Amino acid sequence: MKILILAAGMGKRMKSKMPKVMHSILEKPMLNWVIDTSKKLTSEIAVVLGHGIENVKTIVDKDIEIFEQKEMLGTGHAVMSAEDFLVGEELLVLYGDVPLISEGTLKELISKHRNNKNSATILTVDLDDPTGYGRIVRDSDGNFKKIVEHKDCSDEELNIKEINSGIAVYNIDELKKALKKINNNNVQKEYYLPDTFLHFKKVQTHKIKDITEVTGVNNRIQLSQLERKARENKLKELMLNGVTIIDPESTYISPDVQIGIDTIIYPQTYIYGATQIGEDCIIGPMTRIKNSKIGNNSNIIRSECEEAIVKDNVSVGPFARLRTGTILEDKVKIGNYVETKKANVHEGSKAQHLTYLGDAEIGEGVNIGAGTITCNYDGINKHKTKIENGTFIGSNSSLVAPVTIGENVTVAAGSVITKNIPKNSLAFGRAKQVIKEGKSKFKK
Amino acid sequence: MKILILAAGMGKRMKSKMPKVMHSILEKPMLNWVIDTSKKLTSEIAVVLGHGIENVKTIVDKDIEIFEQKEMLGTGHAVMSAEDFLVGEELLVLYGDVPLISEGTLKELISKHRNNKNSATILTVDLDDPTGYGRIVRDSDGNFKKIVEHKDCSDEELNIKEINSGIAVYNIDELKKALKKINNNNVQKEYYLPDTFLHFKKVQTHKIKDITEVTGVNNRIQLSQLERKARENKLKELMLNGVTIIDPESTYISPDVQIGIDTIIYPQTYIYGATQIGEDCIIGPMTRIKNSKIGNNSNIIRSECEEAIVKDNVSVGPFARLRTGTILEDKVKIGNYVETKKANVHEGSKAQHLTYLGDAEIGEGVNIGAGTITCNYDGINKHKTKIENGTFIGSNSSLVAPVTIGENVTVAAGSVITKNIPKNSLAFGRAKQVIKEGKSKFKK
Amino acid sequence: MKILILAAGMGKRMKSKMPKVMHSILEKPMLNWVIDTSKKLTSEIAVVLGHGIENVKTIVDKDIEIFEQKEMLGTGHAVMSAEDFLVGEELLVLYGDVPLISEGTLKELISKHRNNKNSATILTVDLDDPTGYGRIVRDSDGNFKKIVEHKDCSDEELNIKEINSGIAVYNIDELKKALKKINNNNVQKEYYLPDTFLHFKKVQTHKIKDITEVTGVNNRIQLSQLERKARENKLKELMLNGVTIIDPESTYISPDVQIGIDTIIYPQTYIYGATQIGEDCIIGPMTRIKNSKIGNNSNIIRSECEEAIVKDNVSVGPFARLRTGTILEDKVKIGNYVETKKANVHEGSKAQHLTYLGDAEIGEGVNIGAGTITCNYDGINKHKTKIENGTFIGSNSSLVAPVTIGENVTVAAGSVITKNIPKNSLAFGRAKQVIKEGKSKFKK
Repeated sequence: MKILILAAGMGKRMKSKMPKVMHSILEKPMLNWVIDTSKKLTSEIAVVLGHGIENVKTIVDKDIEIFEQKEMLGTGHAVMSAEDFLVGEELLVLYGDVPLISEGTLKELISKHRNNKNSATILTVDLDDPTGYGRIVRDSDGNFKKIVEHKDCSDEELNIKEINSGIAVYNIDELKKALKKINNNNVQKEYYLPDTFLHFKKVQTHKIKDITEVTGVNNRIQLSQLERKARENKLKELMLNGVTIIDPESTYISPDVQIGIDTIIYPQTYIYGATQIGEDCIIGPMTRIKNSKIGNNSNIIRSECEEAIVKDNVSVGPFARLRTGTILEDKVKIGNYVETKKANVHEGSKAQHLTYLGDAEIGEGVNIGAGTITCNYDGINKHKTKIENGTFIGSNSSLVAPVTIGENVTVAAGSVITKNIPKNSLAFGRAKQVIKEGKSKFKK
Repeated sequence: MKILILAAGMGKRMKSKMPKVMHSILEKPMLNWVIDTSKKLTSEIAVVLGHGIENVKTIVDKDIEIFEQKEMLGTGHAVMSAEDFLVGEELLVLYGDVPLISEGTLKELISKHRNNKNSATILTVDLDDPTGYGRIVRDSDGNFKKIVEHKDCSDEELNIKEINSGIAVYNIDELKKALKKINNNNVQKEYYLPDTFLHFKKVQTHKIKDITEVTGVNNRIQLSQLERKARENKLKELMLNGVTIIDPESTYISPDVQIGIDTIIYPQTYIYGATQIGEDCIIGPMTRIKNSKIGNNSNIIRSECEEAIVKDNVSVGPFARLRTGTILEDKVKIGNYVETKKANVHEGSKAQHLTYLGDAEIGEGVNIGAGTITCNYDGINKHKTKIENGTFIGSNSSLVAPVTIGENVTVAAGSVITKNIPKNSLAFGRAKQVIKEGKSKFKK
Repeated sequence: MKILILAAGMGKRMKSKMPKVMHSILEKPMLNWVIDTSKKLTSEIAVVLGHGIENVKTIVDKDIEIFEQKEMLGTGHAVMSAEDFLVGEELLVLYGDVPLISEGTLKELISKHRNNKNSATILTVDLDDPTGYGRIVRDSDGNFKKIVEHKDCSDEELNIKEINSGIAVYNIDELKKALKKINNNNVQKEYYLPDTFLHFKKVQTHKIKDITEVTGVNNRIQLSQLERKARENKLKELMLNGVTIIDPESTYISPDVQIGIDTIIYPQTYIYGATQIGEDCIIGPMTRIKNSKIGNNSNIIRSECEEAIVKDNVSVGPFARLRTGTILEDKVKIGNYVETKKANVHEGSKAQHLTYLGDAEIGEGVNIGAGTITCNYDGINKHKTKIENGTFIGSNSSLVAPVTIGENVTVAAGSVITKNIPKNSLAFGRAKQVIKEGKSKFKK
């Protein structure tokens, strides 16, 4: 089985500087949806690119063959552009702008093709309004007879609801012969791939119900509709597997995300990339998580979390931000207006208010007071702050890195710490208070 | 009138470690929706629990009788498990997983039951697709004849759209007799409560239109659908009573919340618990309020508010967080990145930027500068900060509690305040500035 | 062409202290929607006000004539209240509570009126459920015959789906004569404008498909429905013009906003007022922008932005807030928990964490460390902070305005800066660190 993905079009109605297949659904370009589904079926995959080929190439995996369609002369011509790929038994043709085609449907299609030793097997659907689509015309026994393009339909044929999705499996040898027989004697002067069906020995169809699987994207309204459908598919899968989604209408989870049972996802939550979330968590509302790993029974409320590791029984948020390289061990608490970056916070430590922890190693049972700043950047380089187990950092302290604060230290509130502090010490770095009685400018 | 709520099932399709009736709609477990509605009709309420009984008990009000169904042998068996409760005149049977049944519908049902001196009165609805449900079969006069389970339906009966919701009122004496007559000679080996209808003197039905009132929850997709419906019900009620809801699709308000006229609720706003909000407020977008009391003409924008009291003409947010024990008197302003906890802020005081006020008593007309921190925690205990009327706290100050700052004081910016300050004083706690010309590492 | 907008009603079912036409859709009062559309057609516009006239006047543009309807005696009476305005050729009557009528529809209506030299031309629609509306009755040739109010309809007339929208163009002379002929012999004792149609020489209709254009608002549920429709209209226009809207269901963009191609708008984003956004930006999720101008290739993520100017390649957010008078030049970065107000930040400067920049002029290539506060308010006046090119402000610094910090200065972390700093200097304003070994209260 070989798969050829046609992705050469510009997509004028997208009104974009970017080729159509690069537009994303759930943060993944449409072409990559089709490639990722294809990979579940075979490793022999090729794409036909055209408009913006240099750009599109950058999102195509290295192990996929790329063919260039130099002129836009129709789908038949696009397949001919990949002539060197047409070697072997069967070819499945997919489209870079039809992103939601499913593995399951394709397996059924291929299976029918093989079982019935077809020359070609066409994926079809019934449309309430088939205007514009090629109709599937059948003989009196219900067998496939031909495809008639909308503009060529008789009155009777116009009533046919079943249409050609464009997706089909072909016997490669027969396809190559058929491609030689089609021509471009039409208004658009294009070579149409469906014209090959006239030249096959045995054509069958496979009809599916879910129209969205074969829906193409031509403008950004359609893009938003398929994005919505892609979300629905993922959310249904999660709900049926024991995840509570409070409001599926405003929850955004991409297909590769894994979530354990009894986790509750509140609305306005975005979970993207290769994120894994354990059981019994509360995520959201208004949380964004990307490429992170969250353990069990942890809460990430109204916060940002990117490229972070959060273990069990951790509490994050609201208004927190975990940036790349954050590791929160068990029972850590990160509170409001707290940012962490390359920060490894060990078991049971807390930073609950108005804090920046950057390039920091925080031991166990550490308390970071409100308003603490790790001064990790000197204008040229980043430096590391190390705080050892059991230490208490008073509020509004500035920890000027590189600096190491030992175990069980007390740093007084409002201190600027510039030198290492040995364990068990009390450290100050603040001025003495002076009171000038009667000197307030607001005195009465 | 007695009400028996059946709530013994596990709900396998929820794929949960938690019994089904404990899953929540608008933050209230489904069972509590049914209990709360029941309480509007009678004080004699019992529940039949089974799976996870120890867990479920924790959410059942103390004044409600609990019966245990030790084996899952059907709804008839569940009612028999509460045999001691079957004393008196009438029994209404409800279900812990049918949460949206309304007081109004139940009153109509009971009223019909009483007015017609029925043995039993069944609540019914018409379903477009009644597959799987017991059909209401009527005689040629349109009177109730029997219920036929889906699998036992004749072709004609399969076309009946009216189904048994399971909810019904029973004459208790007749019910007890009928229960003795039913058996478990069926595939599931269960005792079915609807089998009792064959043994009553006079059965009538009461048909309603709103299907969601009798919709049960079997999986988390259905849970999300009823959550949505529950939200719609509450939001319609609020809108018809003079509250503007900008986008009912993404506004989340639980049933007990009260809101005054001409208040505007922006989207992505969550209002839960026993919250009361006055007139002419602007709430949201992206605001969460729980168990709080908000006065008139106050704005809470893009903020969190839990267990707080906010009086009139107060402005909160964006990005503010009012935590438990916050009291904001009239005309207070709390701005961005400001957290309050156990903080009583008196009339006209302001804390507008990057501030933490914890365990604080703030007088009238106080100005809290940007970046001010009440250092309320010494690592062992929490201490109190008191700031009296008319005082000005310079930006980036640390107020090390316990500390009292008198009336009309000026605290200089960047001060660490560790000692009490008498009224009318000017207080400093900061180092003198030193300039080393030409010593910048960035000099050019 | 003159336009008269009837806006005198209270709107009892709004349950509001405010007259109905002042209620907003996408932050613009309904009456202003109608006025703004009217202005696209003519400059001769008048409104008839009644309930709350003093209040409503405040939102009516100065160049619009205001007439008062002193008693609520029907739509015919309302038009008579503006008798002095009834001079000239044609009068288009619109309604302050029918906000979504479009310029295109009105142009078609007027065009038909003129081309056919009509006495009056009525805008009509078909309603699935026309209950309560006046029906358009036609003669056997399909020509307009009369309008019959719902309560006066024969059984046959009740089946008519086409209804009078109330919107119509009139020949002014004929209208004035007709108004003299109508009476208030009806249950409500009101003068009905549609009664004039009996007295015209030639009446035609113009039927449109989009019901929402002629939908009036009577309660807040309808208000939310038209708000939703207004959003849909704007979002469709943007999507067809090359803007990606990830989730049109929870994106809120008002009609006057302009957005360039290939900009992506994430959900829960609000863009209001006279905002312009360039190409290739990423806006949202959870961003609010009002009356601001954003350049190309800038990102404003999860932030607030009001009355600000943001140039090209700027990055803002998450959790940032740009307030009035903020100007961010090219390549500026404003990060989490950073607030700017009257702050002009020049090319390439950065303030990335927990910072308040108020009344500030920041040069090029400046680095503002985490936790920096411009102490711009002394309790009485606001003062300005000036930071020149290439300067580095260490973290947790307090800059006590008025203060000027020269070029290429280094301010040490944790400093309180009260005096001007000459260029190339290193400045400190912090206490020396003191360590008391073994004196930690947490020592072990």
